[in-house]
Amino acid sequence: MSNGDIFIGEVIGTAILILFGAGVCAAVTLRHSKARASGWVVIAFGWGFGVLAGAYTAAPLSGGQLNPAVTIGIAVDTGKWDKVWIYLLGQMVGAMLGAVLAYLVYLAQFNANVASGSGEGGADEDGPTPTLGIFSTIPEIDNPVANLITEIIATVALVLPVLAFGLTKGLGESGTQVLIVALLVVGIGLSLGGPTGYAINPARDLGPRIVHTFLPIPNKGTSGWSYAIIPVAGPLIGGALAGVIYNAAF
Amino acid sequence: MSNGDIFIGEVIGTAILILFGAGVCAAVTLRHSKARASGWVVIAFGWGFGVLAGAYTAAPLSGGQLNPAVTIGIAVDTGKWDKVWIYLLGQMVGAMLGAVLAYLVYLAQFNANVASGSGEGGADEDGPTPTLGIFSTIPEIDNPVANLITEIIATVALVLPVLAFGLTKGLGESGTQVLIVALLVVGIGLSLGGPTGYAINPARDLGPRIVHTFLPIPNKGTSGWSYAIIPVAGPLIGGALAGVIYNAAF
Amino acid sequence: MSNGDIFIGEVIGTAILILFGAGVCAAVTLRHSKARASGWVVIAFGWGFGVLAGAYTAAPLSGGQLNPAVTIGIAVDTGKWDKVWIYLLGQMVGAMLGAVLAYLVYLAQFNANVASGSGEGGADEDGPTPTLGIFSTIPEIDNPVANLITEIIATVALVLPVLAFGLTKGLGESGTQVLIVALLVVGIGLSLGGPTGYAINPARDLGPRIVHTFLPIPNKGTSGWSYAIIPVAGPLIGGALAGVIYNAAF
Amino acid sequence: MSNGDIFIGEVIGTAILILFGAGVCAAVTLRHSKARASGWVVIAFGWGFGVLAGAYTAAPLSGGQLNPAVTIGIAVDTGKWDKVWIYLLGQMVGAMLGAVLAYLVYLAQFNANVASGSGEGGADEDGPTPTLGIFSTIPEIDNPVANLITEIIATVALVLPVLAFGLTKGLGESGTQVLIVALLVVGIGLSLGGPTGYAINPARDLGPRIVHTFLPIPNKGTSGWSYAIIPVAGPLIGGALAGVIYNAAF
Repeated sequence: MSNGDIFIGEVIGTAILILFGAGVCAAVTLRHSKARASGWVVIAFGWGFGVLAGAYTAAPLSGGQLNPAVTIGIAVDTGKWDKVWIYLLGQMVGAMLGAVLAYLVYLAQFNANVASGSGEGGADEDGPTPTLGIFSTIPEIDNPVANLITEIIATVALVLPVLAFGLTKGLGESGTQVLIVALLVVGIGLSLGGPTGYAINPARDLGPRIVHTFLPIPNKGTSGWSYAIIPVAGPLIGGALAGVIYNAAF
Repeated sequence: MSNGDIFIGEVIGTAILILFGAGVCAAVTLRHSKARASGWVVIAFGWGFGVLAGAYTAAPLSGGQLNPAVTIGIAVDTGKWDKVWIYLLGQMVGAMLGAVLAYLVYLAQFNANVASGSGEGGADEDGPTPTLGIFSTIPEIDNPVANLITEIIATVALVLPVLAFGLTKGLGESGTQVLIVALLVVGIGLSLGGPTGYAINPARDLGPRIVHTFLPIPNKGTSGWSYAIIPVAGPLIGGALAGVIYNAAF
Repeated sequence: MSNGDIFIGEVIGTAILILFGAGVCAAVTLRHSKARASGWVVIAFGWGFGVLAGAYTAAPLSGGQLNPAVTIGIAVDTGKWDKVWIYLLGQMVGAMLGAVLAYLVYLAQFNANVASGSGEGGADEDGPTPTLGIFSTIPEIDNPVANLITEIIATVALVLPVLAFGLTKGLGESGTQVLIVALLVVGIGLSLGGPTGYAINPARDLGPRIVHTFLPIPNKGTSGWSYAIIPVAGPLIGGALAGVIYNAAF
Repeated sequence: MSNGDIFIGEVIGTAILILFGAGVCAAVTLRHSKARASGWVVIAFGWGFGVLAGAYTAAPLSGGQLNPAVTIGIAVDTGKWDKVWIYLLGQMVGAMLGAVLAYLVYLAQFNANVASGSGEGGADEDGPTPTLGIFSTIPEIDNPVANLITEIIATVALVLPVLAFGLTKGLGESGTQVLIVALLVVGIGLSLGGPTGYAINPARDLGPRIVHTFLPIPNKGTSGWSYAIIPVAGPLIGGALAGVIYNAAF
């Protein structure tokens, strides 16, 4: 794979991933969305099928890693680091692009995010909805050590299986490997997303946070930069740790 | 594939798609349905498994495109336009047939769509339920530019992956390609369906709207023709745009 | 396949199907069940994964038809009727066995189905829960013509795709055919199950209804025999009709 | 497969299974979790995708049995008992490790499990949440005979299909076998989990119960040892019974 193909593949694939992921958070969060308040199962499947869409699309160009934690895990495992920077660059650009696309899909909803007395907004009917949670993760309990542990373990639970799946007979040949990874991501969301919203991908969290900082969303609220280091460091540590475990055990 | 096979395949496949899609909207919307008010996750999976059922059934005859946006995207990519009219004709006929079948499945429910004092209808217990949303899409916020952008991006998110999936090793040979597309459509519904109800398919929206105009449903309400151009134009633009992106990037 | 293998395969497979299907209805319906009131999506996936479990298990012995409507549809298509009686016999015996197994799984819940003042039962806290809906289908609106139409169309939507799936390249060889059928059944439940509860299988409805008539369940309520002909006749007509359509179109 | 590979594979795989399974129970149960009260469908898919993640990861090392009931069922079928002890040892160690990992993921939530007047906890807002249900199963109705029957039947419904899946053409070669088993486990949860919470795996229940006994969780409540024999004995009997049925019928 050429550097150009890798870059384009990761940009397109990560953009699709974040379009679906930020999209489903917007769908569940924003007023005037048909999916409003449809619950955690929708969030988890939306992100998982974002992986499905993005990774299958990117696969012919770049292999569809879409996540610096996966890229680091593979590099630790294989010892090949020379292409890592291209993957990471494409992932960051793609994540920002995807966040902008999700914003455009929900443009009318974002522009309607003002105080309302319409009574249809439930608990937040008296004010606008904070929007950061659509773009980046926010912990339920702000505890840096606990949040970091959560992100590390959840990322190991992503990257270690991803590394091992390649060994399973016939999984790659039949093209179902990406489907399994997508359902794995659904599972991580369902099971391990409760405390921090499962970044498990530094680009997925940092790229949209940058975009959130600059987008002209009415009443958008804080961009949460004081927390931003955790969902970058945790997944990077988790990805490297998965590579180490994989090398030792398999 | 002969023209006759293409036509019959697209009619049958699109009819099944709309039977499931309009069916799940009826299931969730109408009084006296066991699935009433069962939420957005049911809508999204119902439409996605409609793609599964329709596309697998049509695949041996026509390839199972079932969507003018997909057909246009493939034509832009390959440059072959001579069969496009047969696909589109079959898709429109199938979409109308499927809408009639969904109406027949929910015949007793449609005929019971009258003002009620029974108290089981929740918020709309005092009047009949509007029925257009079972057949065609309605935006949550009526903003033609924003709605068009939503439909364009959501359709690119459908057609670009569909074009790229064909490149993935083994996906076609093992017959899992349609399954992936079906789950992709579930994901689009979950993530990008909030603002407009994700037509992402001109035949899916226009065919049932025509049928809704003529069906003798009690208290059916408006057929929403003032909005009808958006869910046709948006998906056509999105399909063509996906073909252009695919040609440029892959 | 020998007659003995067919019989045993259909008994085991249909028993598993009904164990899961009646099981999920018990899970959602009965007091003192952890899944109580968990909604239509649980019903639809429970039945679909019952098809998955039963059909994969029966496949090596009998092909895993598990449904007289499927057996009739195949016979109409192929013109081979000599083994049909063995399939139907196995399916009826299996359906009754599965209903008994589901009863045993929820034995304590069934035995606790008495009037309660505990207040945890929601709307029916003042009396026992009717149990027929756990075993067999009940229409939301009792209208024989409309109910029959619903069952016929829903069964065509099952059997026509099942017949066509066999034509899809690689689907049988890779073993994913049953998975697709299972998800198709989930889709039928989500989309077409609203009016009658989607029997779409004469054995699935008649076998458990017989069992319900004889089981010593406290306060079990009516076994609904006045409706019993519809979910037998509708699926048989639908299965045959699917065979005719398949022969004409494919 | 060497004894070392089997042990390591079963430890890693079962740890991932329980991390996801105990994780999803924590996600749905604990205050300050984004998935709180998201329902039974989340529980069932979380456990099923835990099987997916664990079994695919372990497959290249140990085959990914992850469950003494499966191991016993295979041994009864094949008559080979010499490796059984290694599988069981790995499964128990892995289950305990996974429970500790799930505790660490939800560390802040567990530490916040104190009486609160915050009003966000719904029915239990006045006191801490009991935590045993996150680790091990608790019957809704405490009836040893009925609970044992439930666990036996539910385990047969797991192990008999697992044994039969190996016979299905192409399922193993295409690597989709584990996916089917994972969805089977989702189905068991949806359909048969209502009465006892579906242990269907002695290690899944006993390992986390031991861990729960020793973990320093505030207000953790009872570890329920009086019930602990049922979810060990039931699945072991069910696994052996499935092996006997499989040998007789296939």
